[in-house]
Amino acid sequence: MSDAHNDGQIRLVRISNAYLRVTLDIPPLNIFGPANIPQLEEIVGLLESDERVKVVVFDSAVEGFFLTHYDFLAKPEESAKFPVGRTGLRALPDMLARLSRASVVSIASIRGRATGVGSELALACDMRFASREKAVLSQWEVGAALVPGGGPMARLPRLMGRGRALEVLLGADDINGDLAELYGYVNRSIPDSQLDDFVDSFARRIASFDRRAIAETKRLVDLNSLPPDAEIVPEWDAFIASLGRPAAQARLRLLFEQGFHKPGDVESRLGYHVGTLGSTMDIS
Amino acid sequence: MSDAHNDGQIRLVRISNAYLRVTLDIPPLNIFGPANIPQLEEIVGLLESDERVKVVVFDSAVEGFFLTHYDFLAKPEESAKFPVGRTGLRALPDMLARLSRASVVSIASIRGRATGVGSELALACDMRFASREKAVLSQWEVGAALVPGGGPMARLPRLMGRGRALEVLLGADDINGDLAELYGYVNRSIPDSQLDDFVDSFARRIASFDRRAIAETKRLVDLNSLPPDAEIVPEWDAFIASLGRPAAQARLRLLFEQGFHKPGDVESRLGYHVGTLGSTMDIS
Amino acid sequence: MSDAHNDGQIRLVRISNAYLRVTLDIPPLNIFGPANIPQLEEIVGLLESDERVKVVVFDSAVEGFFLTHYDFLAKPEESAKFPVGRTGLRALPDMLARLSRASVVSIASIRGRATGVGSELALACDMRFASREKAVLSQWEVGAALVPGGGPMARLPRLMGRGRALEVLLGADDINGDLAELYGYVNRSIPDSQLDDFVDSFARRIASFDRRAIAETKRLVDLNSLPPDAEIVPEWDAFIASLGRPAAQARLRLLFEQGFHKPGDVESRLGYHVGTLGSTMDIS
Repeated sequence: MSDAHNDGQIRLVRISNAYLRVTLDIPPLNIFGPANIPQLEEIVGLLESDERVKVVVFDSAVEGFFLTHYDFLAKPEESAKFPVGRTGLRALPDMLARLSRASVVSIASIRGRATGVGSELALACDMRFASREKAVLSQWEVGAALVPGGGPMARLPRLMGRGRALEVLLGADDINGDLAELYGYVNRSIPDSQLDDFVDSFARRIASFDRRAIAETKRLVDLNSLPPDAEIVPEWDAFIASLGRPAAQARLRLLFEQGFHKPGDVESRLGYHVGTLGSTMDIS
Repeated sequence: MSDAHNDGQIRLVRISNAYLRVTLDIPPLNIFGPANIPQLEEIVGLLESDERVKVVVFDSAVEGFFLTHYDFLAKPEESAKFPVGRTGLRALPDMLARLSRASVVSIASIRGRATGVGSELALACDMRFASREKAVLSQWEVGAALVPGGGPMARLPRLMGRGRALEVLLGADDINGDLAELYGYVNRSIPDSQLDDFVDSFARRIASFDRRAIAETKRLVDLNSLPPDAEIVPEWDAFIASLGRPAAQARLRLLFEQGFHKPGDVESRLGYHVGTLGSTMDIS
Repeated sequence: MSDAHNDGQIRLVRISNAYLRVTLDIPPLNIFGPANIPQLEEIVGLLESDERVKVVVFDSAVEGFFLTHYDFLAKPEESAKFPVGRTGLRALPDMLARLSRASVVSIASIRGRATGVGSELALACDMRFASREKAVLSQWEVGAALVPGGGPMARLPRLMGRGRALEVLLGADDINGDLAELYGYVNRSIPDSQLDDFVDSFARRIASFDRRAIAETKRLVDLNSLPPDAEIVPEWDAFIASLGRPAAQARLRLLFEQGFHKPGDVESRLGYHVGTLGSTMDIS
């Protein structure tokens, strides 16, 4: 828990009783590691229990990264130590499922890269607004011989239909703000200079509304649109199994040789780089 | 039943045996009240039983309004007197569910504001075409501490995905033609000068087709896309319950003080005005 | 089986062990007939069994046509002779359902008309990319008093929502590349000059990835997004029944008088021409 990735944290800022902001601040890359699990758990617990809160915005303090993939340098025992959550899901998917189901309205304000865990957190939020110029969304996992584990196979087809969801998941490529908007990966992409004001105004508007009307309306939407937890269980199991296979280990090793987990081109253009691994490995 | 809102009516015009037009003509605002329930009931009954009809277009004769919210000046006993409909739903959601399920193809031609009941009627139609410049769609209810009751929590996520549906429902704001098209709230937005010709040509095309092929194809689409009535029951119950709560009564009172139910800025820019109530009430 | 439509064939080209191309080459119109059923059956069987294959692209060698409607000149006994497939569905919907469910990633590269069977094949593929200038998609059947039979009532609403699916199916009109992209009928429309390179690069990218990660991710997407076969059974039955009715026979006869099944305006602008049949027949 003492490596450089964990100097950072997930910070909660209370704008008002009704309006919270959660800022992802794990420099230099906003890589999500085991140290961040209890931080996010505490925040989700608060969102579930504080009856004054109506809206929460997730944003980033790290240039270029909203939140990216899991920390592959973390010791496996550090990641495995967390108990099964209240939903019966493992810690990470448990928190994401509870965030979606909470009465509070959750909004992802995406500037920079939202990849892997970052995309999954955004998808677990109720709404997503993206910087038109600076957002990059992706599920990169298949490019590293991994199966995504935090819900995207359950959530993406419900947002954008099977064809576009398969393109995002099996293409494993970077998706910019305009394409994310076209596909419905995000609600809208907003010019970067206007994103903060837009999201803040929207959140203040929600915060001015009646909490019970919000909660009941959301609950009725969720009846037909929220994936059941049982659909996410096999995703997480498939992710863990894929992580242990030689194919993933070989591709992750190559990525590390090229600069994975360090500031630079591999992390910034991860979609491009996973597309080069196969030829390097003479696999195809 | 004797107030000014009910001088108007919902008029049925028979263009041909196969092609009907239903014109919403309740000046000055196309507010839907209890007097309009039997008018719409009669029309829906005819659409269900007249085996010559293939297509029906809903449009408006009132400048600026396709159809807006329910009449909050109507006496509660006037609204409550209607028996449960054939589906087991209350009168308004019953008619909307039956319209969706009828063999006839229903098209909403939206010019002006489609808010509350107006949005719900449009969503119950099979298709929606909007004036690019003059359409305004919204579910304004949460902004008045109400829960929408006529089906939008069941219908919107199926059209546009959970994230955009939550934005429409919890944001309670006005949605213009372009955004409605991007989100799939409408099929397409059409330049205002072309909307009438476009819809009329499309309706005449449908009217020229074989009634049985239309009906069977629609029925097979509905198998996987139409919400079950059971999902709409709790919406209506939640709407009625919310209407009786002090939070909604307080916000409606403020809206009335500002000009609700009268021609003017509150009715024309309802999305803006519900966003100002919270600060007035010092609620957030 | 000896008519001119069947000089052509569906050709399989192996670009690499992992990457196949299936080229629809049934000049002059890419009309799909009974002779093509065993050809497609052989290809789908290979896609299911060859464990080296990761991706297959369907394209056309016929100018102006990706793949169009079924061959209405074929003898009914030629079409009816094929046994029920492994899924329990009839031969054509059986192959389409198996293609969707195969581990291999299937991509339709649509240049020219994808109508009827052609649209249904494209919809059964995992992804669809269309030429912005040259793609034309449609389900034309209702325009000829037919009910579509190969899955579009099950697949279209899941891709684009009920309203747009009903417009496509009941309007029976030609949909160009831009509208197909807006509606989600295709993943994206691509400028024609870039389509081949785009699809080829995407397919090579997929081919460079790990086969098991692809297959497991796709299987998890399919859990919530693929229609059950049971939903397609009644479509095929309704298609066959509609084909036997006088309304369809009369409209097909008119289409044949005007040039159906021959190169020319009827086949090229089928959406327009089915829209003229009703007035000719004095039906509406």
